[in-house]
Amino acid sequence: MQQCQNFLFVLKFLGTNYHGWQIQKNALTVQEVFQNAIFKLIKHKTDIKGCSRTDSGVHANCYCVNAKIDIKINETNLLLALNNILPYDIRVIKCIKVDENFHARYSCLYKEYVYKIYNNKIMDPFMFGRSLHFWYDLDLDLMNDLASCLIGYHDFSAFCSLDNRNRSNMSRNVTDFNITKIDNIVEFKVKSDGFLYNMVRIMVGTILEGNYKKMNKKSIKYILDSKDRSLAGKTVPAQGLYLNKVFYEGLIL
Amino acid sequence: MQQCQNFLFVLKFLGTNYHGWQIQKNALTVQEVFQNAIFKLIKHKTDIKGCSRTDSGVHANCYCVNAKIDIKINETNLLLALNNILPYDIRVIKCIKVDENFHARYSCLYKEYVYKIYNNKIMDPFMFGRSLHFWYDLDLDLMNDLASCLIGYHDFSAFCSLDNRNRSNMSRNVTDFNITKIDNIVEFKVKSDGFLYNMVRIMVGTILEGNYKKMNKKSIKYILDSKDRSLAGKTVPAQGLYLNKVFYEGLIL
Repeated sequence: MQQCQNFLFVLKFLGTNYHGWQIQKNALTVQEVFQNAIFKLIKHKTDIKGCSRTDSGVHANCYCVNAKIDIKINETNLLLALNNILPYDIRVIKCIKVDENFHARYSCLYKEYVYKIYNNKIMDPFMFGRSLHFWYDLDLDLMNDLASCLIGYHDFSAFCSLDNRNRSNMSRNVTDFNITKIDNIVEFKVKSDGFLYNMVRIMVGTILEGNYKKMNKKSIKYILDSKDRSLAGKTVPAQGLYLNKVFYEGLIL
Repeated sequence: MQQCQNFLFVLKFLGTNYHGWQIQKNALTVQEVFQNAIFKLIKHKTDIKGCSRTDSGVHANCYCVNAKIDIKINETNLLLALNNILPYDIRVIKCIKVDENFHARYSCLYKEYVYKIYNNKIMDPFMFGRSLHFWYDLDLDLMNDLASCLIGYHDFSAFCSLDNRNRSNMSRNVTDFNITKIDNIVEFKVKSDGFLYNMVRIMVGTILEGNYKKMNKKSIKYILDSKDRSLAGKTVPAQGLYLNKVFYEGLIL
């Protein structure tokens, strides 16, 4: 094999038909489909490094992958060739040559997730599978107040699924968290240097419950300090979650 | 059977899984699904009148139906009950008691269709099946110029599929036709007192071809006057078409 070039691929995918990113037995994943497309094109095996695991049904506006491949082709043609092979629900939206040390996961500085809620008595059929249907009134000011308490460097043990709570470092630095509503769509947008397992979905579930449990900022601080998963809210379903942006030093995606 | 009440139902549906509105053998249609839902609820047969036929794969933001039914239930509960029975991709968004002479099709004054084009080199996976992917540059000013020639009372024979051209009256009154672009989504919005078979899809196809065939207003007038289908453009695919609004006297939907 000749000298390989390290490529960063930015994917956009509708996660409905996939069991998340990471390859697994007996279930179709985005990684498997993307890896097969790369293999079909370059005819040699290579490791595909994704920027994060994602759960079954989660979508991505921007999912980053890198792979070292041996091919005489420029970025534009590589992108076009891959999109010709990939199914309609996965698109390569950018392809960039990167330094050989670049790693989609370890080089990542921040990630931003969006969680979408369709907030109306009657669900929009066009938003089914792409948002959570929630029909009760939501108090945007209250929710933004609650979200603001989660900004900062905290131990997020209370916002991590139980089977993943025995890791050494449960602290993450959440830099932004805001909630907006346009028409009937409420978007929770949160940026952090990393996320624990199910962290976004539990944070959203907790803030949603804040609407009818009369929570205030103290309630959120209490839950954070407790490190007790049972005090936080339910894990909202995966279909409303989108990996929205990934941040690397010196790269504008 | 007791006295029946005439109800107008406004539906919103994702047409992907249906072979259009009208009941047919060996293919699932929106009418069949809606009629079964009504029957399940009211336990007696009734005619369901739709405001128009739609082709396989066409969507609706607002599709109107009326049915005379014998049920002791108010509009809100009728709407909720139907939505409980219907699949996720068809929703009743309004339910209104109307005069016994109201007919979803014959009482209709105007209809408005929207045709969506995703105008970018790379398709958005979230717009697949919900728009036409068109990657060449589009000249909005030119297209609006061409569209403006179709406004007015004209014989639209040239913009009607061949197998439906032997009707007595091929004239329709197009009152509005404009084309806008927001981000990568180009929307053709057209309102008329009626539409011939495939008329919107042929008008959009013709205007699209105007971009690279160097058409001007005279070309459109020439095609209109010719009444010759072969001079107009291709029929664009159904998946970009949405029945967007239906207008009735004295009703705001």
